[in-house]
Amino acid sequence: MATHEAIAAETAAMRRAIALAARGLGHTSPNPVVGCVVLDAAGQPVGEGWHQRAGGPHAEVHALRAAGERARGGIAVVTLEPCDHTGRTPPCSRALVEAGIARVVYAVADPTAQATGGAATLAAAGIDTAGGLLAEQAAAGNEAWLTSMRTGRPFVLWKYAATLDGRIAAADGTSRWITSPEARADVHRLRAEADAIVVGSGTARLDDPQLAARLAQGDVDQPLRVVVDTRAVVVRPGARVLDGTAPTLIAVAEDADTWHLDGLARVLRLPPGPRGHGLDIPALLAALHAQGVRSVLLEGGPTLAGAFIAAGLMDKVVGYLAPVLLGAGPAALADAGITTIGRALRLSVTDTARIGPDLRITAVPQRQATPTTTQES
Amino acid sequence: MATHEAIAAETAAMRRAIALAARGLGHTSPNPVVGCVVLDAAGQPVGEGWHQRAGGPHAEVHALRAAGERARGGIAVVTLEPCDHTGRTPPCSRALVEAGIARVVYAVADPTAQATGGAATLAAAGIDTAGGLLAEQAAAGNEAWLTSMRTGRPFVLWKYAATLDGRIAAADGTSRWITSPEARADVHRLRAEADAIVVGSGTARLDDPQLAARLAQGDVDQPLRVVVDTRAVVVRPGARVLDGTAPTLIAVAEDADTWHLDGLARVLRLPPGPRGHGLDIPALLAALHAQGVRSVLLEGGPTLAGAFIAAGLMDKVVGYLAPVLLGAGPAALADAGITTIGRALRLSVTDTARIGPDLRITAVPQRQATPTTTQES
Ligand SMILES: NC(=O)c1ccc[n+]([C@@H]2O[C@H](COP(=O)([O-])OP(=O)(O)OC[C@H]3O[C@@H](n4cnc5c(N)ncnc54)[C@H](OP(=O)(O)O)[C@@H]3O)[C@@H](O)[C@H]2O)c1
Ligand SMILES: NC(=O)c1ccc[n+]([C@@H]2O[C@H](COP(=O)([O-])OP(=O)(O)OC[C@H]3O[C@@H](n4cnc5c(N)ncnc54)[C@H](OP(=O)(O)O)[C@@H]3O)[C@@H](O)[C@H]2O)c1
Repeated sequence: MATHEAIAAETAAMRRAIALAARGLGHTSPNPVVGCVVLDAAGQPVGEGWHQRAGGPHAEVHALRAAGERARGGIAVVTLEPCDHTGRTPPCSRALVEAGIARVVYAVADPTAQATGGAATLAAAGIDTAGGLLAEQAAAGNEAWLTSMRTGRPFVLWKYAATLDGRIAAADGTSRWITSPEARADVHRLRAEADAIVVGSGTARLDDPQLAARLAQGDVDQPLRVVVDTRAVVVRPGARVLDGTAPTLIAVAEDADTWHLDGLARVLRLPPGPRGHGLDIPALLAALHAQGVRSVLLEGGPTLAGAFIAAGLMDKVVGYLAPVLLGAGPAALADAGITTIGRALRLSVTDTARIGPDLRITAVPQRQATPTTTQES
Repeated sequence: MATHEAIAAETAAMRRAIALAARGLGHTSPNPVVGCVVLDAAGQPVGEGWHQRAGGPHAEVHALRAAGERARGGIAVVTLEPCDHTGRTPPCSRALVEAGIARVVYAVADPTAQATGGAATLAAAGIDTAGGLLAEQAAAGNEAWLTSMRTGRPFVLWKYAATLDGRIAAADGTSRWITSPEARADVHRLRAEADAIVVGSGTARLDDPQLAARLAQGDVDQPLRVVVDTRAVVVRPGARVLDGTAPTLIAVAEDADTWHLDGLARVLRLPPGPRGHGLDIPALLAALHAQGVRSVLLEGGPTLAGAFIAAGLMDKVVGYLAPVLLGAGPAALADAGITTIGRALRLSVTDTARIGPDLRITAVPQRQATPTTTQES
């Protein structure tokens, strides 16, 4: 049945399924985002769906419901290998068999031990099953969940906003009006897609941020707000991060006094960080992961970002660069344990965009430092 | 004769003329770059030319020669108003009249007092004359010359290369391998288009740069190499900048001892800068302008760039950003006299490009600080 038309129809359906999956970002953790399109026996789309929230029906179930009887003899195109286990919902493999689906095409194999086997179950039930279609694009759409599956900790996206010369504030500490309203709205979109937002006590003290996804369009599950405040002295009652509009977690040292946070925020006690400074970042991420957090938006500041990078715990960076020059003031990134150019953290740029007057640069760490480049004057 | 076809033919010819003009960049100072296309009476291109070097024939003369008798009754399309004065070559207005050109279309009016009047002379000779076609694009191609005409000093393009977090070197001073070979080649192109390259004594001491346009393709007039070395102590015999491959000028204080530079470099004595530090930058630019320099590529370092920016003497910036993070090390721009965010130098991004693995950002200062943007956390 692999005619040119069939391949084209399945590829178009997979593109659509990937776009549908993205609608779930910020709502599905600890589950992945998944999109599904059902084609009828003639290759026409007859149903679509996406995993809308953890505990709700899987993408396949939504799409099969929409297709109804037209699914019989048809093709299910799905971004992730259908699950094979009974969790909060029955296995999708069974739903696909019962709907009379003749063929299943998925993009990315499910790496979780408990779910793996969906493809095998389908094949055993006589369903023609193929994986790998647009796997790279589908994996990119699920990067947070896949990374957290691979590493056992949440995916960490570091966001910063700086001037062209890399400053986040002027010499006197003033920092308003660096990036544009458009860039700010874009950050709120990142917040809406994250399970948790993390900032250090320095940012909490200087900015008193609310850390809400205010400007994002559509339905937002407010992410967990996390402040790393070793001695529990910065976040006090009245802080905007304690305003009750979203859950808040304050990470503190094991012996910190936290009675003033009772009823206002959850408290997470962590061991000390390297050389006794601050808190243990891997322990923070492990605790968040245990609570179902699969993606963290690290909003800084420079000191905390340096600690994440020094620990090798940054999966992606989004930098908003404002066309502004200052010539003085704190830099976007503080000590990350790098003292010489050969140890620099080398990244690959994956995207650049103009956001209003500003630039947005997205980059991911290279697997290995490969100094294939030269500079001379 | 302003039919749709005629307008289209003239516009296409002007685009071509602007591209031809750009071939002169780096060769024509103190003259502008100029391109010309001659269309015959039927609107067909029959000759083209550009101003190739100061003292050589103007663009119109090249184009008219190429067109020969086919210019009679035709149209001359030229990026700058034809000159009307006898300098090292006779006036172009006369050449156009003698060739029997019926119509002249130019983009930008000539702002120089001595040359102005070309259009009037042509009109008086009965030639249909129109200005302003693609004026903005043509002016952009001549920005260095037009800026220097307007300001009486060379156009200043500041180039820097930095990491994503705005560093030009690591904490230990190492800086090799930040940007890529592609970015380096692009800088050599900028050098080839400049009349002079300027660096501070700090860069001369730390990098011992040659400041040659080595990698540029095609014919290069090596730009003048300028080192701002107040006490004439940094650039010593054996320095690469004294290698004789291009002219070199060392700017020094009035009382500096320069016997060691005799026969190796020109010496320019300048008054002290603001508060007695370094040299007077406006005086440096005035002296360069008096020597026919119309464009300066300011290659840093951060201290000298700060002085140019503090003096309001930067017309454009080209930043090469390598996808690298350091978290420590000197910033791309040092003290520019800006201490608070409201006084930040605000720019407009005019271009962004991927250069190998790096990003190139081009921006120009906004005429006025217009804080129409907001930032919140
Ligand atoms: N432009 C932007 O994108 C952006 C984003 C965020 C912030 N900012 C700016 O950044 C500035 C604040 O940054 P900052 O660098 O001073 O503070 P920060 O990075 O927000 O917080 C650093 C603090 O977090 C605590 N911490 C706990 N465990 C840590 C660990 N393992 N490693 C490092 N820190 C740990 C430490 O204080 P304790 O141990 O005492 O708790 C440390 O001093 C503000 O001016 C803010 O406006 C800018
Ligand atoms: N990545 C890049 O794009 C790039 C480009 C160039 C340089 N660099 C790096 O920059 C570093 C050197 O930079 P730097 O900031 O130390 O030195 P610099 O900017 O190259 O030179 C500054 C020196 O120029 C002299 N000067 C004379 N008149 C001046 C004035 N009016 N204002 C300011 N300075 C004046 C001063 O020394 P005296 O008065 O004592 O002569 C001053 O210390 C090197 O590490 C180099 O590798 C990087």
